[in-house]
Order: sequence, then C-alpha cells, then structure tokens
Amino acid sequence: MAVQTVAGNATTAPVDLGPAAALSCRECGERFELGPLFACASCFGPLEVAYDLPTGSPEELRKRIEAGPDNIWRYAPLLPVPADVADKPNLNPGFTKLVKADNLARELGVTGGLYVKDDSGNPTHSFKDRVVAIAVEAARAFGFTTLSCSSTGNLAGAVGAAAARAGLRSCVFIPHDLEQGKVVMAAVYGGELVGIEGNYDDVNRFCSELIGDPLGEGWGFVNVNLRPYYGEGSKTLAYEICEQLGWRLPDQIVIPIASGSQLTKIDKGLQELIKLGLVEDRPYKIFGAQAEGCSPVSAAFKGGHDVVRPQKPNTIAKSLAIGNPADGPYVLDIARRTGGAVEDVTDEQVVDAIKLLARTEGIFGETAGGVTLGVTKKLIEAGVIDPTLTTVVVNTGDGLKTLDAVSATSQATATIKPSLDAFRAAGLGTA
Amino acid sequence: MAVQTVAGNATTAPVDLGPAAALSCRECGERFELGPLFACASCFGPLEVAYDLPTGSPEELRKRIEAGPDNIWRYAPLLPVPADVADKPNLNPGFTKLVKADNLARELGVTGGLYVKDDSGNPTHSFKDRVVAIAVEAARAFGFTTLSCSSTGNLAGAVGAAAARAGLRSCVFIPHDLEQGKVVMAAVYGGELVGIEGNYDDVNRFCSELIGDPLGEGWGFVNVNLRPYYGEGSKTLAYEICEQLGWRLPDQIVIPIASGSQLTKIDKGLQELIKLGLVEDRPYKIFGAQAEGCSPVSAAFKGGHDVVRPQKPNTIAKSLAIGNPADGPYVLDIARRTGGAVEDVTDEQVVDAIKLLARTEGIFGETAGGVTLGVTKKLIEAGVIDPTLTTVVVNTGDGLKTLDAVSATSQATATIKPSLDAFRAAGLGTA
Ligand SMILES: [Zn+2]
Ligand SMILES: [Zn+2]
Repeated sequence: MAVQTVAGNATTAPVDLGPAAALSCRECGERFELGPLFACASCFGPLEVAYDLPTGSPEELRKRIEAGPDNIWRYAPLLPVPADVADKPNLNPGFTKLVKADNLARELGVTGGLYVKDDSGNPTHSFKDRVVAIAVEAARAFGFTTLSCSSTGNLAGAVGAAAARAGLRSCVFIPHDLEQGKVVMAAVYGGELVGIEGNYDDVNRFCSELIGDPLGEGWGFVNVNLRPYYGEGSKTLAYEICEQLGWRLPDQIVIPIASGSQLTKIDKGLQELIKLGLVEDRPYKIFGAQAEGCSPVSAAFKGGHDVVRPQKPNTIAKSLAIGNPADGPYVLDIARRTGGAVEDVTDEQVVDAIKLLARTEGIFGETAGGVTLGVTKKLIEAGVIDPTLTTVVVNTGDGLKTLDAVSATSQATATIKPSLDAFRAAGLGTA
Repeated sequence: MAVQTVAGNATTAPVDLGPAAALSCRECGERFELGPLFACASCFGPLEVAYDLPTGSPEELRKRIEAGPDNIWRYAPLLPVPADVADKPNLNPGFTKLVKADNLARELGVTGGLYVKDDSGNPTHSFKDRVVAIAVEAARAFGFTTLSCSSTGNLAGAVGAAAARAGLRSCVFIPHDLEQGKVVMAAVYGGELVGIEGNYDDVNRFCSELIGDPLGEGWGFVNVNLRPYYGEGSKTLAYEICEQLGWRLPDQIVIPIASGSQLTKIDKGLQELIKLGLVEDRPYKIFGAQAEGCSPVSAAFKGGHDVVRPQKPNTIAKSLAIGNPADGPYVLDIARRTGGAVEDVTDEQVVDAIKLLARTEGIFGETAGGVTLGVTKKLIEAGVIDPTLTTVVVNTGDGLKTLDAVSATSQATATIKPSLDAFRAAGLGTA
C-alpha cells in the first residue's frame, strides 16, 4: 500500500480524545497532532497514541475505575476517548468474563491457576468490538460521517453494528466470494456492503486508494486512517485481566497473532498499569500463537531472526491468516524481552483445542481460540510454559462463527428409534 | 406425556436450595417436599417453587444484591439455589445489557423510553443459560450425575455447555433430522448427543419414558423432572430489568411466548419484587408475542377464550414453535390481569423486525427477538402499547443461530472491480 501521512479529511474543531496527547512514531519517536494519520511523515513508521496519563495515587485511580461501567469505558482515563464516552450511543463492549478454568487446568496439569479471557462475550462476539468502539470515538472527534473497513468477515460485522448504534453511515469492503454466513452477518446491520472482485489484498489496496480520493471524503477506515486509535482498544484486554485477577499481573499470557497488533497493545497496557502503580511491577511472559499454515512470526522466532518473512496463508484459522503481519517484528521483541515464545500448531491441533475447551469449560471458541489454547498445550508439554505459574489464555471470538472447523467431528453419538430397547441397545443408559 | 409425580431418583440427604421451601401446585395449592417432581399428586397440576423470602428492609436487600456478582447469582436470595452457588463451577449467565434503544424509539415513535433486554449476551447466547443454570443446582442437590433434555437446538447447547463446566455427564436428545449447525453446537461440548428417529413430540415422549425407567436413574431432565426449578431462572429477567431501570417497574414489557413459561415467570418475579418492597407497587402491563404460524395463545386472547386450542406450527421462529403451550392459560390470565395483550406477526414482519433492530441499535437478534419486536411495533401502531410509557422488549437469543431467516435479504449492496471508477459508477462514494 502507498504510504500516506495525512489521510481522509478532519474537522478543524479542537479534538477531545481525553488523555490522548499526540500521535508518536513507534520507530523514530517524532510526535504529531492528533488526527487521522497512520504513518510517520519522517520515517514512515507506524504511529501510536501518546498519553498524558492520570496523576494521583494508584488507590484513587483504582477506585475511579471500579466505580465505572461494566465495560471498556471504565478505563476511559487510559484510552483515547472523551470523558463522557459512556453517555454516547455505542455497543459498550468489554469486561468480558475471566473464567477460572479448573477443569482445563487439571487436563493440562496446570497447578498455578489457569484462566480463559473469553471475548466471545462481546456484543458481536469477538474482540473486534473493543477496537471498533475506540475507532468510533476517533471518527466522531475527526468529524467523519462514514465508518468503513476492509474485512474478511468478523470486522465487517463489528463495524456495521457499531456504526448502526452510533448513528454513523457505514460502508464495508469484503472480497466478493466470502462465505454466505459472513456476508449475512456483515449486511444485516443495514450499512453498505461492497464485494470487491479480488482477494483481501486487493480490497486493502482499494481502500488505500479511496482514502486519498475525494470519493472517500469524511470516511473513517477503522483499520487504516483510524488505526492508531483502533489498536488502543486491545489495551483493555490487559487492563481487564489484571483487574479481574485482583489488580495483579499474570505470570504468563498466551495471545493469538494475526497482524500482531493485539499482542503488542496488550503488552503496552501491562506496561502502563505498572507505570501507574496499579499493579506491582514483576516479571511476566508473553507468548504468541499462530497456526502452522500461517506462521511467519513463529518461524522467525524459532529461527532466531529479527525479520518476519511473509507467507501465503493456508489454515482454517482464517481470522489469523495474515501472511505479512505488520507488527511481527514488535511481537518478536516482546516475546524475547519478556522471556516468552512464539509457537504454532497444526489445524488438527486447533480443532482438538476448540473441543478441549468446550468439553472442559463449556466455552465454544473460534478457531483463533483453538490456536491459542493449542499453543498453550504444546508449550506446557515442551516445558516452556511453567504449569506452576498463573496463566491466562485469550479466546478472541466465538465458535458459532467458525462452525465448519468442528462440524466433521461434532456429530450425534447415536441415532436411534424412540424406544427404551433401542436406547439400551446403544449402551447409553445408566442401568 | 404420561403424568408422573415422582420422577428420577433423588438422594436422601437433606436438600439445600437456599430460600426454596417447597413445591406447590399452581392449581390446587398443595405443597410437596423439594424433589425432582413436576406434577401435583392430587390434581396433576404443574408444580412451582415456593419460597421463604428474605426478611429485612428493602434497602438492605438491595445493597446485598448490588454487592453480588455481575450475573444471576446476585439474586441468589430469591432463587432455588444454595447460598454458595457463585463459588461452584457454572457458566454464570445473566446481568445482560438493558440497552436504551433511542434510535429504535425514534423509528417507532416511542417517547417514554424504549429498552431492549438483550439476552444474546449470555454464555451460549440465549436466555436458556439462565434456566439451565438453576436446573444444574437442582441436579446437584438431588444427586443427579447426568444432565439431560429434549431439544430442538438451543437448549441442547445450553445443557451441553453447562454440564461440561459443572463436571456433570450430559446426554441430550434431539430429532435426528435437525439442521447441521444446531447438531454441531449441541455436540461440540462433548456430551452424548442422541438423534431420535421422529419429531420433537416423539423425543419428548421418549424422555418421559426414560425418566420412569432404571435406564434413566440419576438423570436430571432440565425441562421435565427439573422443570419447576428450571423455570425459576426466567424470574431473573424481571429482577435485572427492574434493577437496571434503577429499581423501578417498567410500564410495559413485551415477551415472546413458546411454552409461555418465561412470561409467567417474569410476572412472578415482578410480583416478588413488589412484595419485598424492592420496587414501588404500581401498574405494569405484560404483552405476549407469537408468530402467526404458531399463535395458539394469541388466537385465544383475541377470541376471548380461556382455553388454548393447539396448532400445528409453521413459522421461521422455530424456538417459539410450540403448538400446545403448557403455560398458555396462565399467559392469558396475566395479559388480561395486567391490561396487556397477546398478538402475533407474520414471518415477513419477523424478518423486518430483526433487520430493524440490527439497523437501529446494532443488535442482531434471533427470530424470537424479531417476533417480539414485530409485535411491539404492531401494538404501538394499533394504539395498544402506549408510546409515552417506559417499554422493555425482550430479545431472547442470537441472530447467529438463525441466519437463514435473513440471508435472502441481507446481501452485498454491490459487487465491483477494485477501482475508483467502478466505485464511482456504483454511486457509493461521498463526492
Ligand atoms: Zn518516524
Ligand atoms: Zn394440585
């Protein structure tokens, strides 16, 4: 995609995004005024939000957060959103369950406490609701009237739903040959849904063109010109995990890798909590999870490389199938800095892990969740994840959206005539 | 089904189900000890749970509830569950969002406050998680080791998931020719899933036989021999709606009717809140919603009858397709007593309502939700629901489970080549 530094059109009104002070370049550190920018004018590096974080005692801040709503807006003082964000119409994602997974822990031999952060509980049933909710606030601040994105499915639904509730127009771009179920989920919210004759890369390229054209005037693309804000939504996973553990860092977190943005923002969130004194500063390890069929970061990690070599994805974990992950190098840094690792599992192991989680904890995760749990299991067995320490596994979405992955192996145990004799013959009763 | 008064086998240990004191017959009032019973030994009437409700001031009870967990267990003092219920492994359903639906209100001309109680936020994305969670506690109390049910889909998943988490065996019965997606959702949690060669009535009849046979020893059928407990889970919808409105009764509630149990239990819950002084005693109206293709209660209401004449269901709202609803007469009583009504809508109106809710509030409800909103719209237009009063519409489940209902009309707006010219030609841009 062509590098652009100013993208879309902003209002000239002063921008109120709460504690967000500026955008700063992740590579060279140069700062820019808050706006719909996504690449550094000097070095083309990615931009991220820099904050004036709250002052005052950790106790006060904890109390303020705990008194807030049961959604991501309880962390408004740490997010690029205005202070009155909770009063505006939005989907109020977040504060999903952190499930203490004792049955699963027994199966995996984990004794230090195993938790599943279950983001299938979000309004459209994936973590995308978190990032989109932040992008909506940026879109409002910059005067955008249309919310847009390129998507292979999940994000399209999250954007469509959030825009509907926020009273924004939406226009979402997808490859024209997407599965029917995903098309329906993206279209049902009533926004414009445009199929592009091409693959996901073609869709992305088209969106970049549109941002630079008058045709796209007033359009906020959540994952392009609003990306620095959008990405910050993933920090809330870190905040919630620590708060739900009683304001404590977990020892180990396992996170799926698509672009790598979620993992890097969770690390950013943990660092902020330490800096603010909201949690005790002690070591934690971050582990990244990929599917073998799309494992560029895992390959680089295991090969000891700093550079991520792109791959052509071929895996059932379609929501993670990004062959050239933008934040790959940062993921490698974080895994190495914290003493974690990046690993991958086969599609078969993904399916096994989805069913393991369902069978032990009653949580039906999407394929990305299967990747994460599959990698967790593999790293425990390899002695890399320490089973005596507190471990959090992130399930980013819902199995209902990826039914195909398990349909071949999730069928009726038996089919019988409606009689006790038939039931007895099938060996199913107690007696 | 044959009437049985003692069903399944219970332990002889004293039963601790918190404030639940006995079972009492809804028809003749006779009381029975807590146990896996579901019909009165004297008159064969349905049994329901009778309570020793908490004493003490409303302020104290409100405080106790508000200090509880963010799920149905905050209402443990009003439910047939032991006091330590929240410490046991279960799915912790409930405390779903009560969404202030201002966009929808504008479209419908409602000025008195319109709310959607969105139960798609439950763990398996339907209100069934509430009722199953209560049944699990009864199963534990009675020493059952297998959790079971007859189901056409949603309940099977809810039971499978809850049993997995609770560490109970599950064995669920479905018609053998169910849609593949529903089979997968029911099977993925790893319990036994048995297809019965027959329709849903055959499945039900078979389950009743099994309860009376040694083969079914130790089995708790959530919607048969645990039904009096199971049904109580729906009271939590009433509690949550009132608490989320600031401990206030809504003026009007619209509720879908399948067996009619949910509506009658919501009314029971509201009456309890009044009796306990938790809300001010003032009039409220309850409205029941059916699909035209399965509208026995609506037909009886509109015909001025006390008796519900069974129908053969034919509607896309399959989760409401009970042609001979057990609680139909009670629903008629409640609608008439409160000054409400029962109405039905066509399948086309159901689809329109699903899309209306998605388009205005970003909530993708199941067909039952479409029935409820469709009836709400119809009754507002007919002047039966007063738009100047506070109105709550219950969405009981998730559109992801009934994609077929909207797939024909939820498609891409346009399919274009990846070029600005093609985009311009399609008339989609701003400029
Ligand atoms: Zn730079
Ligand atoms: Zn009786």
